[in-house]
Amino acid sequence: MVVNLFTDPVWSGLFGDEEVQSAFSLEATLNHYLAYEVALTNALNAHALISTQAKEAVLKGCEGFEPDLAALKAGVAKDGLPIPAFIAQLRARIGEPHAAACHKTSTSQDVMDTALALALKQVSQILTTRLAAVIGALETLKSANADHTLMGRTRMQAALPITAGDRIATWIAPLKRYQQKLEDAAKQVSVLQYGGPVGTSATQGEHAEVIAAQMAAELALEVPTQSWHTQRDNLVDYANVLSMISGSLGKLGADVALMAQQGVGEIKLSGGGSSSAMAHKHNPINAELLVTLARYNSTQVSAMHSALVHEQERSGAAWALEWMILPGMCMATGASLQSALKLLQQTEWIGAPLSD
Amino acid sequence: MVVNLFTDPVWSGLFGDEEVQSAFSLEATLNHYLAYEVALTNALNAHALISTQAKEAVLKGCEGFEPDLAALKAGVAKDGLPIPAFIAQLRARIGEPHAAACHKTSTSQDVMDTALALALKQVSQILTTRLAAVIGALETLKSANADHTLMGRTRMQAALPITAGDRIATWIAPLKRYQQKLEDAAKQVSVLQYGGPVGTSATQGEHAEVIAAQMAAELALEVPTQSWHTQRDNLVDYANVLSMISGSLGKLGADVALMAQQGVGEIKLSGGGSSSAMAHKHNPINAELLVTLARYNSTQVSAMHSALVHEQERSGAAWALEWMILPGMCMATGASLQSALKLLQQTEWIGAPLSD
Amino acid sequence: MVVNLFTDPVWSGLFGDEEVQSAFSLEATLNHYLAYEVALTNALNAHALISTQAKEAVLKGCEGFEPDLAALKAGVAKDGLPIPAFIAQLRARIGEPHAAACHKTSTSQDVMDTALALALKQVSQILTTRLAAVIGALETLKSANADHTLMGRTRMQAALPITAGDRIATWIAPLKRYQQKLEDAAKQVSVLQYGGPVGTSATQGEHAEVIAAQMAAELALEVPTQSWHTQRDNLVDYANVLSMISGSLGKLGADVALMAQQGVGEIKLSGGGSSSAMAHKHNPINAELLVTLARYNSTQVSAMHSALVHEQERSGAAWALEWMILPGMCMATGASLQSALKLLQQTEWIGAPLSD
Amino acid sequence: MVVNLFTDPVWSGLFGDEEVQSAFSLEATLNHYLAYEVALTNALNAHALISTQAKEAVLKGCEGFEPDLAALKAGVAKDGLPIPAFIAQLRARIGEPHAAACHKTSTSQDVMDTALALALKQVSQILTTRLAAVIGALETLKSANADHTLMGRTRMQAALPITAGDRIATWIAPLKRYQQKLEDAAKQVSVLQYGGPVGTSATQGEHAEVIAAQMAAELALEVPTQSWHTQRDNLVDYANVLSMISGSLGKLGADVALMAQQGVGEIKLSGGGSSSAMAHKHNPINAELLVTLARYNSTQVSAMHSALVHEQERSGAAWALEWMILPGMCMATGASLQSALKLLQQTEWIGAPLSD
Repeated sequence: MVVNLFTDPVWSGLFGDEEVQSAFSLEATLNHYLAYEVALTNALNAHALISTQAKEAVLKGCEGFEPDLAALKAGVAKDGLPIPAFIAQLRARIGEPHAAACHKTSTSQDVMDTALALALKQVSQILTTRLAAVIGALETLKSANADHTLMGRTRMQAALPITAGDRIATWIAPLKRYQQKLEDAAKQVSVLQYGGPVGTSATQGEHAEVIAAQMAAELALEVPTQSWHTQRDNLVDYANVLSMISGSLGKLGADVALMAQQGVGEIKLSGGGSSSAMAHKHNPINAELLVTLARYNSTQVSAMHSALVHEQERSGAAWALEWMILPGMCMATGASLQSALKLLQQTEWIGAPLSD
Repeated sequence: MVVNLFTDPVWSGLFGDEEVQSAFSLEATLNHYLAYEVALTNALNAHALISTQAKEAVLKGCEGFEPDLAALKAGVAKDGLPIPAFIAQLRARIGEPHAAACHKTSTSQDVMDTALALALKQVSQILTTRLAAVIGALETLKSANADHTLMGRTRMQAALPITAGDRIATWIAPLKRYQQKLEDAAKQVSVLQYGGPVGTSATQGEHAEVIAAQMAAELALEVPTQSWHTQRDNLVDYANVLSMISGSLGKLGADVALMAQQGVGEIKLSGGGSSSAMAHKHNPINAELLVTLARYNSTQVSAMHSALVHEQERSGAAWALEWMILPGMCMATGASLQSALKLLQQTEWIGAPLSD
Repeated sequence: MVVNLFTDPVWSGLFGDEEVQSAFSLEATLNHYLAYEVALTNALNAHALISTQAKEAVLKGCEGFEPDLAALKAGVAKDGLPIPAFIAQLRARIGEPHAAACHKTSTSQDVMDTALALALKQVSQILTTRLAAVIGALETLKSANADHTLMGRTRMQAALPITAGDRIATWIAPLKRYQQKLEDAAKQVSVLQYGGPVGTSATQGEHAEVIAAQMAAELALEVPTQSWHTQRDNLVDYANVLSMISGSLGKLGADVALMAQQGVGEIKLSGGGSSSAMAHKHNPINAELLVTLARYNSTQVSAMHSALVHEQERSGAAWALEWMILPGMCMATGASLQSALKLLQQTEWIGAPLSD
Repeated sequence: MVVNLFTDPVWSGLFGDEEVQSAFSLEATLNHYLAYEVALTNALNAHALISTQAKEAVLKGCEGFEPDLAALKAGVAKDGLPIPAFIAQLRARIGEPHAAACHKTSTSQDVMDTALALALKQVSQILTTRLAAVIGALETLKSANADHTLMGRTRMQAALPITAGDRIATWIAPLKRYQQKLEDAAKQVSVLQYGGPVGTSATQGEHAEVIAAQMAAELALEVPTQSWHTQRDNLVDYANVLSMISGSLGKLGADVALMAQQGVGEIKLSGGGSSSAMAHKHNPINAELLVTLARYNSTQVSAMHSALVHEQERSGAAWALEWMILPGMCMATGASLQSALKLLQQTEWIGAPLSD
């Protein structure tokens, strides 16, 4: 087994999501750090906190800056995060007398949380598009199979006949609600972070608010009403939506796997996975994967809620837990929507068809 | 240790919440079942699905009906839920020829989910009131301590001075967001369930929609757009809000416990728990409890997400998991708000006071 | 819905376990507290830490002591646990001049952890007996159905034929391993706690070890090698075994529910739950319940692991989390074994039988 | 943020563990697959199930085989796992007439579970060595600080003085117990898998047992008593031990972070992380990380327990959940032991030292 199924060259065939991954690549992350510093520099200059010469020196230093990764890695080992080493490298590149103008009034968490906001904004767009595609595919499937007969089953026992349309409708409805929830949650997390060392504008000076507004505009993020260094509820809410999406798709997957059983035969899937031992098998891989990803996210979301207990002005312990959990939840949700799409594309019919 | 700290005669002193408990008492639950049957009976008669004589016979049977609990218990053991036995008893009391008019077109899940909706509506009102009280207490505390100096601490290390007001503001802000989230989530779950055996109006006849609307009006619940037998996302969302409330109060508790340490002394609490061995101790019981309840809910919420994988038209397995989890989460959230209130009432000052 | 399915007069029909509950009743818990104080008193006297007159006065006070529950409840609210109030009441009953001889050298956690050890020892005996009964029932079932043909199914798809005996063997094997694990885990937690205020024998005097040994002998518990106030790994290990038992029974339940499907028909169950709407249904209630209880425990066990982060010499926050979680896990495991037994008793045959 | 902190070129500076990662690298994994096929081939030939010519052809094909990763990725996407594509490539390389001799009597899960066993055996050796090193470092620390005074703290409040030795002893004792538990758990999972398509030797022929024994000997694994395709308890137990190790190290981390607070000052750490905004800070990065990793594993372990509900003869859904969870738990545990070692190396003294 490999450490990370999402990114492994082989296993990503099933678990990977290139689009979501691109938002969380190291390259994207470092670019986001740089974008933060550029926006900060512009805003500091606009409000006379650094001179125009300083601004130009900083921006020149940022241009084409490719940090030394080994030094960043050593920095992470020592400081717990890469920003001190990143800024040190960047300042060395800027050189005197303007090195100190770079990152002025900011703290590491400002950079990293803003980078997260930029990544989540991108992820949200990907998921939004894909959620609409899944709903579209389900509606197409519903139209084509609406009147097909299906045995309604409760407690795993035959109950009364329903239509395929009835069941598909119960798959669609929560996903439609998630469209609004995802839009709201995405907006809540696409927010600039600019709190300075201890999250108070007092340490950042009288222009903190206008600087934040200008930076947010430049980065196409929402303006924060205050620092959210220790207020992680919007991130938790985002994770909730991710897990709810994969959870409802897990229901779809479980239903499909049950319908595809021999002796039940209520669905026809094309393709299907082969076995190394049994040539006759056509395994409903994508249906099973939806259940797996639902269980995965339902477990992970617990850690996000736990990380709300974020002591004082910055909890290294709780904050780092988010780092470990949230990108994986985004990947799993992306993979879940992808797999749902593939599964729906493989679905030839549901319920007793007119002809087979 | 006892099985249930929420309801134990002794342990409920700390973990109990009489108000929330009253919404989930057996008596309230059975009354909700009865209220459902009464509303159904009225609506069935209004749309000519049962005769007025039948209606009167059913309503008379419902009046003052006190089910035999031992028989309900035996019914739960056999059927997995009490409704078949409940209806059997009720029908026996109604007698022929109108017994069958009772519960007509409905299924057990309709009764139980509607009873849950009624309970959650009541819980939501309690939590809403209490959340406002906590915010009020925090704002009072903030006013009184706004300019007190506090050492801002990041990664458990002294960083830069802030004010008590700064820190208290970070406690208040998420709670204010939860006011709206709780209102929204409460509305989403305060919905009638009326889906019949397999969640389709087809089995309930052409009047299903108007019957549902009338029942919802009588029970002061929202009208469902369709059956939510297998669409549990609104319940999950409710659980999310519960866990987020207790999570943010967990941060408050952690901060208070840290401030109350000897050598730090940034808060003065009156009262405080005594020790059976050390007379000098004044333990910040309510602060610790807030952390405990945050961890509790952050664990439980995982099961609610997992239960989204609700196969076919009714999953006995996934549905019963909700029964085991959601009331406890409501209790924990109620207890968390209560403890926060107590803790804030015990707080004499935060940060370096003008005089001590 | 009710707060606690395990103990509710109605819902306990399915979720309850009278035997396990009796180990965690308030009465049993208070009796365990008293047993601790009696054993302590005997041991203190035997090593001349209290006089024989004091011993007799304390023992007389303990005899027939029925604490005032309302005062204990108030004590829990104030102190976070009932022991200070319990001891205060007991000392008042003992009266001067020997009141202080009661509970001497001990702390609240000593009493409560020892009471937990006594409860878990009792629970372990119940579960051990029941685990053997489930294995016995499975072996009987295996004998009777060993050669019946069953379609082996992988990834929910028909693979190759196996025998009913093959599948039943996979249910039995983990349970047999759990017999040893449960025995080991039970022994690990059936340990006296005697650590005094801060878990060090230094505060308890030179006789601490022999006192502990004598108390353990009187209470039929293991002698601790040191205080386990903050070392909660044995409790976590116990929880692991509980969750593994219910997890493997969850597999059994899932398999049975799948075999009982219409169109599959690989098992015949007698009894089965009825529906309030569909008279023809025979729901595999106990099979579903096994899945529910597996999911429940797999969620709860996470909180037990989380509570290992138990700061300093006593964490009120982490310790109280155990109180909220562990008894419920015992109840769920007890219910799981009970339900498995019922399910196996309902099983008439598995696989294609010789005649039907 | 990046998808995977364990393996990222930068973030692995803190979260990475090169040794553990090497056991789960794609290269190691593919080598393990190949080692399985080689051992199988030898054993099949030894028991006359394939000819010596066939054996030689297969072994020659295996020698230096470097699979086409893109094709494996496509195979994973289609089949849910890489083995069918891996075997197809390998057979193509072997060529006719002996291609079919390769992988004979085996199924994909045999290969993958055996590869997991090989990886876990390697991981166990790494963790065993490191656990001993942490215990050694703690014992050194204990010797050097044994009599230093420390304020014993319960419920985050000063209680009574203890020694640094007292507290360090509570850190050591669980780790010593884990040495035995890890040894046992490692042995339980270092087991060959050889069950064939549906986990029954019936489909593998009369020589199944001796073949398994020979393969196990060649691969230096334990001989299975039966196929463990669906019996995942030993993996869960392994995960339990991982989470218990990181949980107890989380307690150590929490204690250190609390001792390192300004106003408490009970520990002196050299090094310490720097801040991008506050030059005076020395953050106890490794202490915080221990808490993070404890919370991480305590969440993940829940999914492993959940995956015990493994339906029928192979659950694609439950099995894949293990793939997503267990390697990360190994990495986190490895990182936890590493961080503990670093933290202990940074610790100059604990408690009031003789001189400072």
